[in-house]
Amino acid sequence: MRILGLDPGLRVTGWGVLEATGNRLSHVADGVVTSDETADLATRLAQLHDGVMAVLERWRPNEAAVEETFVNRNPHSTLKLGQARGVVMLAPARRGLPVTEYTPNAIKKAVVGRGHAEKAQVELMVRTLLPGADPARADAADALAVAICHAHLRASARVVAAALAGGAP
Amino acid sequence: MRILGLDPGLRVTGWGVLEATGNRLSHVADGVVTSDETADLATRLAQLHDGVMAVLERWRPNEAAVEETFVNRNPHSTLKLGQARGVVMLAPARRGLPVTEYTPNAIKKAVVGRGHAEKAQVELMVRTLLPGADPARADAADALAVAICHAHLRASARVVAAALAGGAP
Repeated sequence: MRILGLDPGLRVTGWGVLEATGNRLSHVADGVVTSDETADLATRLAQLHDGVMAVLERWRPNEAAVEETFVNRNPHSTLKLGQARGVVMLAPARRGLPVTEYTPNAIKKAVVGRGHAEKAQVELMVRTLLPGADPARADAADALAVAICHAHLRASARVVAAALAGGAP
Repeated sequence: MRILGLDPGLRVTGWGVLEATGNRLSHVADGVVTSDETADLATRLAQLHDGVMAVLERWRPNEAAVEETFVNRNPHSTLKLGQARGVVMLAPARRGLPVTEYTPNAIKKAVVGRGHAEKAQVELMVRTLLPGADPARADAADALAVAICHAHLRASARVVAAALAGGAP
């Protein structure tokens, strides 16, 4: 089971891929996709989308996970982030991959064990849980954290989704 | 010159296509793309994107225009709208069409002649400026209004963009 984690942003979108074999996790790859700040919005959105499509093409994950975005900032930032998040989430959806969202607290809890961990602790735990991972950018480390969270919670996420849909788990 | 106007929304996205020949405008088609409210977010975003891609495929516009979104509402609505807007704008960008954004006031001014017109006046003027247009939904009428605005302003929008880029108009 190969999992893609995504940390969307209009300027920089982080991504990270890991392999989950039973309870064992291993690092596959990570990086960032950026957009040209001098280009118009539609072009930048296309750059982000194309970049994530290229990651999917190269690394062939089976499932994707993305952080549920904080919205307690100014509305212009929220709109920008929403636009980036839309085109980033669309990429795995277009390839038929399930895309699960996790709150920042759920991610911290899954990675560090506490919902209110510091950013630096999250990054340290990402390196500990994924030996060999050396994400160059914080955005890539955050994306790996989302992927780890999904690796831990995907079984229960499926049960909840099935229950909400009224079917058997 | 065939212009696609877009009025993005996660539940309902309006679209409208018109033909501009010199100063003459004529209605080509309009409608809405909807997403399944019971589906997860990524699936809904893919439905919107696929719907707009199908409109592009069917009606082959040369340029696209979209309303610059109001952000003075609650942050959750702004984020939702941003996500929808991102995947809707992405569709023409992926086909290489230029996508221009207009403020609500610019659109009202172009269509009604005043920046603070009522919604009903905008819809009435859309029907007057595009004989034969009978948009079934307000979202489709709004999309036609954006397309009319672009038909009127595209020449000057190009000059401004060229000036900002430091090139000749």
